[in-house]
Amino acid sequence: MFESAELGHKIKKSEYDKEVPALREALLNAQLDLVKLAKFQVIILIGGLDGAGRGETVNLLNEWMDPRYIQTHGMGDPSDEEMDRPMMWRFWRELPPKGKIGVFLGSWYTWPILNKVFNVTRMADLEQSMERAKRLEKMLVDEGALIIKFWLHLSKEKQKKRLKALEKNPLTRWRVTERDWKHFKVYDQLQTVHEMVIRHTSTAEAPWMIVEGEDPCYRGLTVGKMILKAITGRLEQEAAPKVKRIAAAPLIAPIDHLDILKTLNMSQVLEKDKFKLELEKYQGRLNSLTRDPRFKKMTVVVVFEGNDAAGKGGSIRRITGALDARQYQVVPIAAPTEEERAQPYLWRFWRHIPRRGRVTIFDRSWYGRVLVERVEKFISDADWMRAYSEINDFESQLFRHDILVVKFWLAITKEEQLRRFESRQETGFKSFKITEEDWRNRKKWKQYEQAVCDMVDRTSTEIAPWIMVEANDKNFARIKILKRLCEQIETKLKHIPQNSSQKLLKG
Amino acid sequence: MFESAELGHKIKKSEYDKEVPALREALLNAQLDLVKLAKFQVIILIGGLDGAGRGETVNLLNEWMDPRYIQTHGMGDPSDEEMDRPMMWRFWRELPPKGKIGVFLGSWYTWPILNKVFNVTRMADLEQSMERAKRLEKMLVDEGALIIKFWLHLSKEKQKKRLKALEKNPLTRWRVTERDWKHFKVYDQLQTVHEMVIRHTSTAEAPWMIVEGEDPCYRGLTVGKMILKAITGRLEQEAAPKVKRIAAAPLIAPIDHLDILKTLNMSQVLEKDKFKLELEKYQGRLNSLTRDPRFKKMTVVVVFEGNDAAGKGGSIRRITGALDARQYQVVPIAAPTEEERAQPYLWRFWRHIPRRGRVTIFDRSWYGRVLVERVEKFISDADWMRAYSEINDFESQLFRHDILVVKFWLAITKEEQLRRFESRQETGFKSFKITEEDWRNRKKWKQYEQAVCDMVDRTSTEIAPWIMVEANDKNFARIKILKRLCEQIETKLKHIPQNSSQKLLKG
Repeated sequence: MFESAELGHKIKKSEYDKEVPALREALLNAQLDLVKLAKFQVIILIGGLDGAGRGETVNLLNEWMDPRYIQTHGMGDPSDEEMDRPMMWRFWRELPPKGKIGVFLGSWYTWPILNKVFNVTRMADLEQSMERAKRLEKMLVDEGALIIKFWLHLSKEKQKKRLKALEKNPLTRWRVTERDWKHFKVYDQLQTVHEMVIRHTSTAEAPWMIVEGEDPCYRGLTVGKMILKAITGRLEQEAAPKVKRIAAAPLIAPIDHLDILKTLNMSQVLEKDKFKLELEKYQGRLNSLTRDPRFKKMTVVVVFEGNDAAGKGGSIRRITGALDARQYQVVPIAAPTEEERAQPYLWRFWRHIPRRGRVTIFDRSWYGRVLVERVEKFISDADWMRAYSEINDFESQLFRHDILVVKFWLAITKEEQLRRFESRQETGFKSFKITEEDWRNRKKWKQYEQAVCDMVDRTSTEIAPWIMVEANDKNFARIKILKRLCEQIETKLKHIPQNSSQKLLKG
Repeated sequence: MFESAELGHKIKKSEYDKEVPALREALLNAQLDLVKLAKFQVIILIGGLDGAGRGETVNLLNEWMDPRYIQTHGMGDPSDEEMDRPMMWRFWRELPPKGKIGVFLGSWYTWPILNKVFNVTRMADLEQSMERAKRLEKMLVDEGALIIKFWLHLSKEKQKKRLKALEKNPLTRWRVTERDWKHFKVYDQLQTVHEMVIRHTSTAEAPWMIVEGEDPCYRGLTVGKMILKAITGRLEQEAAPKVKRIAAAPLIAPIDHLDILKTLNMSQVLEKDKFKLELEKYQGRLNSLTRDPRFKKMTVVVVFEGNDAAGKGGSIRRITGALDARQYQVVPIAAPTEEERAQPYLWRFWRHIPRRGRVTIFDRSWYGRVLVERVEKFISDADWMRAYSEINDFESQLFRHDILVVKFWLAITKEEQLRRFESRQETGFKSFKITEEDWRNRKKWKQYEQAVCDMVDRTSTEIAPWIMVEANDKNFARIKILKRLCEQIETKLKHIPQNSSQKLLKG
């Protein structure tokens, strides 16, 4: 696999000097077109061996390009805020917006590889990490991103020579760390793993580019030209008329009209007196659960979805009422901001993933992708169809980081909704809750119903099942929610490993 | 001072129940108007004694209001990312955008008070902290924010009673921590300091509201009504025709036409051979300085301002070329985004303040406030006039956190600028650097010149002096910049205290 990158590729300095001005001009022009178009972002991963010139390559790119639209992220040791979240969080927070270029020194492959080579994890872990990385990249590409992955390679002999040379020169000595030598000692094992990773993760969407790292002229010019070609190619593609992607197999409603929503017993009620007792009981239980010492090692993410006027707000307040205000956060999901629109759709949820020991409640969520965005046709069929597995990937990343995801669908009948709409319009301080949009959505009741059933079928997983809440009676719904939330936290607490912070690096 | 809050204020539960529905409706309506107008944000600080009901008050507000537009921030122990930055960074990152309400449990007063009471700092430190807090609040108010500061009080006897009662009830026991009892032991000292802080920082812009904390009905209703009055009052004010604020004393250019720019010797040049030698020398020096072990305890913020085409980009690249790509970040300042426009103008700079051991280079900066925004009349005279001291406050916060602020003004003559504009338009890959705006700005050369001189006069401080760079000769400018940057870092390194991370809590 690395044979071509051990041939001793080299170009003359004079040739380099002759080619650079034109390349620079072309790169700057491409970069400007990218900025002006602002339709996609460029994510450049720089991986490879120590001493193969990763840092120099990045410096070169910064020198050649307009630094206003390129940003480099050295992915060193994670901070405590990063350790408190899934590994991918630190990449999401640094993702470039559309129109810009983000260069990552190190990538989502770095830790899984090192963990395998130094035997912290097993081969199966690495394989899973690669599958996850591939799905992540596919999603980013589907969301519009251009991903360019470079692998800078050196033969064993040349790596040694290069590290020694760097070490000898007082000006470059700092580049060589103990870690570099530690890695050099396991060159062969590293290469075996690298080869495997590159083979498995070089996809059509995001192929690896292997570049021999020894000669700076060859390396710089090659990387520069590859980036240029990738960006200009993509710019041309954007200019061409688009073929609308169509979902392979469109979803249809069950032909016998039986679905999950129809199985709900919507007449369940809870008497007021009983409600008061139960409310006190479960709020107390929830409260003591969140004060369990083990709770500091986990995180809770609660998702509220449901029909308009199903009582999400009231249910949320019954939860927050049991919590310390310092501990929770309610994130209302409305239209995305300008900065959010310049990112893949999951970005605006990743930014709210809380630290350990916290509770975040999403009032509406990433499921908008397969509900409102689907029904209102904001996105193509292919886009919401792929969202199911993207969302499952997202939630499984949370799960593996000891984040409990509890998802509630609050269901009311069409008649009950009408009753509530009308009563809200009469009650002064609730009238703001009814908008034109609510009435419009109501007209699409059937389409929403199908979207909900499809969503539950495809995203109710073992790690994050949908909890269907019959919400025609508010008291019944509130208690069911509190009770199920308590149960889920209780179960999770029992499974909190002693040293869970180690998990982060597993990718 | 606290006499009125020790009278045993109390209202009947029945009266409370009668008043709440109307209050809630009014609060929700006010909140909705706030959202719709989106012209100012509301910052609510909840301070006061342990056991005085701070947490309950916040829960109540969350219950009464629309949780989509109110966000609570428990300001507990800072994270390592927060410890790495000035104390105010953690507040800036949580500041609500216009149209929303942010509730802070704890405030920028919390640590300075505790540090004084527990003798970590002296009275002079506390006094300075208060002055800084007042200036901060004034700035936020000038930027449009509505600040409401609550102080929940309890007499010594009642605090003891309340802590004991909370501790006795299994459902509320968790609210009482060891820290609470530790604070109770120094009740008298705390009260003395609290009284002083409240007296000194109860300003017309942001007065403290002292509320007796014992009776939950009295406390909740009082806080709710105060918030309602503050928001509706401000909403009315916004609806009224605005009186344009005028700067007290307009600035004029020196009547003898002598100014700082005229004192620069613009004919200084550096020969190419000498330049190459010096470049290598100072890049090497800069590089080794950033690898000094003490550098990990400091931070460098470099500001580049200058005439259009003065060579900022090229100078920045000469700096970054000497640094490890993992260590620096170039932040180009262009038009603010939607999220940035919803915040005080300094917000978008605070968000880029780096961690310790890092270098951040701003290509244009917060000085846009007193340059382009002044000259192009984007803001009123009063707004840019107050910006000088706001900027000085900002930089002094950075300084006190061992952040070195190095500011370069790159000056070229009007003739040299013309030469560069013309040559850029000819060189393909540089032509994008010349826009219509550049030609427009050029026509306002005189106004910009005065703005620059005023800026230097008012913001060239001992802790962050402006370094004027004669940039007609690019080589001369680049070396001067590298040299001065090295000198400043060298001096700073000598003053890095051994245990600088302690500084954070000093406020």
